[in-house]
Parts: sequence; C-alpha cells; structure tokens
Amino acid sequence: MLVLITYDVSTISDGGKKRLRRVAKKCEDFGVRVQNSVFECIVDAAQLKSLEIELEELIDPAVDSLRFYKLGNNHKYKVKHIGAKQSLDVEGPLIF
Amino acid sequence: MLVLITYDVSTISDGGKKRLRRVAKKCEDFGVRVQNSVFECIVDAAQLKSLEIELEELIDPAVDSLRFYKLGNNHKYKVKHIGAKQSLDVEGPLIF
Repeated sequence: MLVLITYDVSTISDGGKKRLRRVAKKCEDFGVRVQNSVFECIVDAAQLKSLEIELEELIDPAVDSLRFYKLGNNHKYKVKHIGAKQSLDVEGPLIF
Repeated sequence: MLVLITYDVSTISDGGKKRLRRVAKKCEDFGVRVQNSVFECIVDAAQLKSLEIELEELIDPAVDSLRFYKLGNNHKYKVKHIGAKQSLDVEGPLIF
C-alpha cells in the first residue's frame, strides 16, 4: 500500500540537523521524496510497523513529529501535484 | 472528505516568504495545520476544486509545489501521529 510520511524535525534544537538527515535517509530506503518533508513509500503492514518503530527512535518526540497516512492500494486517483518537481510513480516502470 | 495538502514553497526565491504566508493563510481557511507545511482540510469536491485553483494562483510553479491527497471520509484509522504537536480532530467537537 502507499503510505505518505510527513515529518517536522526541529533543526534549531540540539542535534536537529542530524535527526533530519537520519529521518530522510530512513524514508529513502522505503520510498520517494516528493517534497522536502514528504515521502511516499510502498510498504506492506509489517514493513510499515517496522518503519514506524525505526523512525520513532530517530526523532526527539518533544520537538519533532511524524505523521503516517495510509493511502491504500488504489491511490493513483487520490493524489494531485501542482508545480515544481513532479514525483516519480513509485510503482511504475522506470523509463529513462 | 479529508484532503491533505502539502506544499514546498521556495523561501530563498524572490517573494518566497510572502507566497508561503499566503499559501498557509489560504489553507487555514479550510483546515488545520498539522505540521509546518502540512494541512488537513475537510472539503467537498467543489471546495477542493476552488481551493486548488486559488492555491495554484499563489505559488510560483517553477520553484514551488502543492500536493493534494484525498483521504476520503473514513479517514480516522488511516492517520497516525508520533511526537510533538498532536493535531486537532478537525471534525470532532471542540472541548477546552
């Protein structure tokens, strides 16, 4: 299923930039960055659970936040992009 | 239905900060800010169309982007929040 992950990491707090890099890196293992703090990941339920736990360990819950939105499998008609940097179709064929 | 709106506005480009303020202000008219660049809005199809058009006019499509994710009506079980600043339930009663 498609899961949208959005995050706010407080880069003005101690170690914030490091946490931000780590959160982005972890999300990159599972999906595509579509905006600065927004990733679209194709995961099954077990992967999602594991990803939630790993990301939770990377953030400072007092100042940072993570949100997970389950968009299901029939998601092609649920997403609209306007403007710069159109995302890849994470499930489509890669054509160069 | 619940629509998630995420945006990247390039604040280093000319007029970027102004565009960012305007985009946030417009989104505030329809929903709740849950993260810095993430809003959850309860809109019907006509309101969504109108919001898309209005937001598109506020951004610079060469450097900024907007994404709209339709989460439908049965969205309570699709969203998980971890960490700081839990959002309001935009459809629930306001209890102070």
